[in-house]
Amino acid sequence: MITEIEELLEAKDYRGLRGILAEMPPPDIALLFEELPAENFPLLFRILPKELAAECFVELDPEVQETLINSFSDNELTEVFENLFLDDTVDIIEEMPANVVKRIIATSPSDVRQQINRILRYPKNSAGTIMTTEFVELKETMTEEDVFKNIRRSGVDKETIYDCYVTDARRHLIGVLSVKTLLTTDIEDAVVGDLMEEDVISANVYDDREDVAKQIKKYGFMALPVVDRENRLVGIVTYDDAMDVIEEESTEDIEKMAAITPTDKPYLRTGVFETFRARIPWLIILMLTSIVTSEILQYFEDALAANALLMAFVPMLMNTGGNAGGQVSVSIIRALSLDEVRMRDIFRIIWKELRVALICGVTLAVVNFAKMLVIDRVSVSIALVVSLTVLILVPVAKIVGGVLPMGAKRIGLDPAIMASPFITTVVDALALLLYFRVASVFIGL
Amino acid sequence: MITEIEELLEAKDYRGLRGILAEMPPPDIALLFEELPAENFPLLFRILPKELAAECFVELDPEVQETLINSFSDNELTEVFENLFLDDTVDIIEEMPANVVKRIIATSPSDVRQQINRILRYPKNSAGTIMTTEFVELKETMTEEDVFKNIRRSGVDKETIYDCYVTDARRHLIGVLSVKTLLTTDIEDAVVGDLMEEDVISANVYDDREDVAKQIKKYGFMALPVVDRENRLVGIVTYDDAMDVIEEESTEDIEKMAAITPTDKPYLRTGVFETFRARIPWLIILMLTSIVTSEILQYFEDALAANALLMAFVPMLMNTGGNAGGQVSVSIIRALSLDEVRMRDIFRIIWKELRVALICGVTLAVVNFAKMLVIDRVSVSIALVVSLTVLILVPVAKIVGGVLPMGAKRIGLDPAIMASPFITTVVDALALLLYFRVASVFIGL
Repeated sequence: MITEIEELLEAKDYRGLRGILAEMPPPDIALLFEELPAENFPLLFRILPKELAAECFVELDPEVQETLINSFSDNELTEVFENLFLDDTVDIIEEMPANVVKRIIATSPSDVRQQINRILRYPKNSAGTIMTTEFVELKETMTEEDVFKNIRRSGVDKETIYDCYVTDARRHLIGVLSVKTLLTTDIEDAVVGDLMEEDVISANVYDDREDVAKQIKKYGFMALPVVDRENRLVGIVTYDDAMDVIEEESTEDIEKMAAITPTDKPYLRTGVFETFRARIPWLIILMLTSIVTSEILQYFEDALAANALLMAFVPMLMNTGGNAGGQVSVSIIRALSLDEVRMRDIFRIIWKELRVALICGVTLAVVNFAKMLVIDRVSVSIALVVSLTVLILVPVAKIVGGVLPMGAKRIGLDPAIMASPFITTVVDALALLLYFRVASVFIGL
Repeated sequence: MITEIEELLEAKDYRGLRGILAEMPPPDIALLFEELPAENFPLLFRILPKELAAECFVELDPEVQETLINSFSDNELTEVFENLFLDDTVDIIEEMPANVVKRIIATSPSDVRQQINRILRYPKNSAGTIMTTEFVELKETMTEEDVFKNIRRSGVDKETIYDCYVTDARRHLIGVLSVKTLLTTDIEDAVVGDLMEEDVISANVYDDREDVAKQIKKYGFMALPVVDRENRLVGIVTYDDAMDVIEEESTEDIEKMAAITPTDKPYLRTGVFETFRARIPWLIILMLTSIVTSEILQYFEDALAANALLMAFVPMLMNTGGNAGGQVSVSIIRALSLDEVRMRDIFRIIWKELRVALICGVTLAVVNFAKMLVIDRVSVSIALVVSLTVLILVPVAKIVGGVLPMGAKRIGLDPAIMASPFITTVVDALALLLYFRVASVFIGL
């Protein structure tokens, strides 16, 4: 494929190129662009039919978009952006440097400019920032025929025409009517008012975009209408944007669980310093919390000098505890963010984890006892001390791993920060105290 | 809300109940069911209008569904299931015990029974298992009017009518036509053949459901047609099912990253032993890998006895290394599963991580040096040894964290298993070796 394109570029066979590209779906053309050297972008782009060109533009990496915009004449710029959906335009603007933004806004018609500016003013992560202001708007009194006329006239530049929203004279949202209902109804000369669904589920422009995405997913909607504080219809969020949000939110959770401050950019597009800034805070915090463990170890320094062999199993104990606790915390964090568990389930969770932990603890203790005698070839007493520690540590770790995320949520923190790295540091300290306590009882420290 | 329902149940005011419930969206009614005692289910369910009852049934927890099915007469059972979409029916069947499944299949009409059985035969996680076999099928020669007649006649029980699929006499998929195109075209007396999009992107029934979901997301489709090996149209996967798959796959990744064997059930619905089985394998494996660290520590036993203070900082070194490496591995794993990075990016990744790691290493070393002098009040030489170890360990850990997931992918393993827990055990050993090497150079062991 790619070579074919290169040959055609080589041969300057632009008709041939256009022929091939015109048949490809936009996301694939975008991928292709990124394979080719930047100097070809403007040429390739101008070869594409206008409509398609715009659709591909949306799919391109911000870097490529910027290169292209800078190569555009003002007319070309207007041409591209008037073929974009408004929410896509806004997405692009948010990625562009100030001077480029100025140009985009300057070259767009004043009504569009106003809408763009309004959307840009909504707070970060609000429904307003992911909605589109292009939707089919109907009035109660319209007949089936009027609706189809309306769609035929304005539908082409709407992101979805399949859910139409009914508003009153003051643009308040009063109903929703799906094209499916229109096409499958057999009520004679019915008007919109008769066919529309009246209790509409809608979001507020200031709602969190994650909640909006969850609603769209929960109800299986194609789009969710967005209203302002006066219940006036201002836009809609479509399912494809909801999909993106759900995926981004999962990524954020995953990053937080790995002690990374989320950056909503793809891995390869985040610069070295950006990545550094995202990672260093937790590394420092977690490093400093280990003061506790070193204090404990210094306290038992002499005892350890006398029984240096004990040290050999500290890493195993810490990891086992950390892993056992991490498993629970991560399960809980995910369950919380999918709304599978709520605060009031905390005792069910503790009760469940307690039972799981006991079985895990016993199993691990036994395996470890065998391992220490067979592989490490230590004395039975040492093997006993370590295995007994495992037996107690695992349940403790699992309860910690279950309670901390719930606790974080309870006091309004993000549960995701209570994942493995944090759990580990807590469990490490507990592991040591437990270990030395058990040791002093059985072999005396 | 819930209390209101309870009062009406108390008062046996079933008309009132019906009135309230009929106005609620199915997912909300389902949530309500789960709040109420099980004995009310059959009653509540029978109060609902048939259509709505079916829609709610889909949303209920398998437990509740089972209770209801067992309370149904065969007629009621048929009634409910004939109002379900086939893919939902199959989802339910997959959750039910054998005897219930038998009853469901027995009570459904023979054509449905055949389709169910066919879908149930598709391999786990294949497109076939998430597709629905109900879609609007058109022929090239149909006029606009024919299409609308077809939709009006059969559309009501189709999951989506907005993308219609065009097949030839032998049911080969030859085109797709959206209702939007139909409604917005102004070509006089055009037939389907003129209006349809001919190069259709489709999936094979045996494709991985995750790839199908990714395609739907990539192209922003409302549905993706599914064909068999002979390119005959057998079903479609709709965007709402794609959303579910994407979310489930993220959950699986998260679980694997936390050393949990994925179970596709919600947290509170997995039993104690199931959870145990999902968690114990990795706990054992990781516990056994720590043999390496204990070997190392035993090897340096005497040296440690002489410099017991050195031990105090082993946990900090291990955690810092583990966290540093974990951050990278998790970033890479997520980027891989979102197709943001590919194998050929490995050197870009190493080069980037190397630079990030150096800045992180220096920062952490400096902070640690200060901390050890000010808080731990150790000698400069010890502080130097530990800080120097941090300085070298962090880059090493980050490279390990970057290379292991890519390596796993390269040899066809799931990168997600190369997350924090596994990285930690590898980095722990490296940390110790490095630490003692540095120590022996500076303070002699």
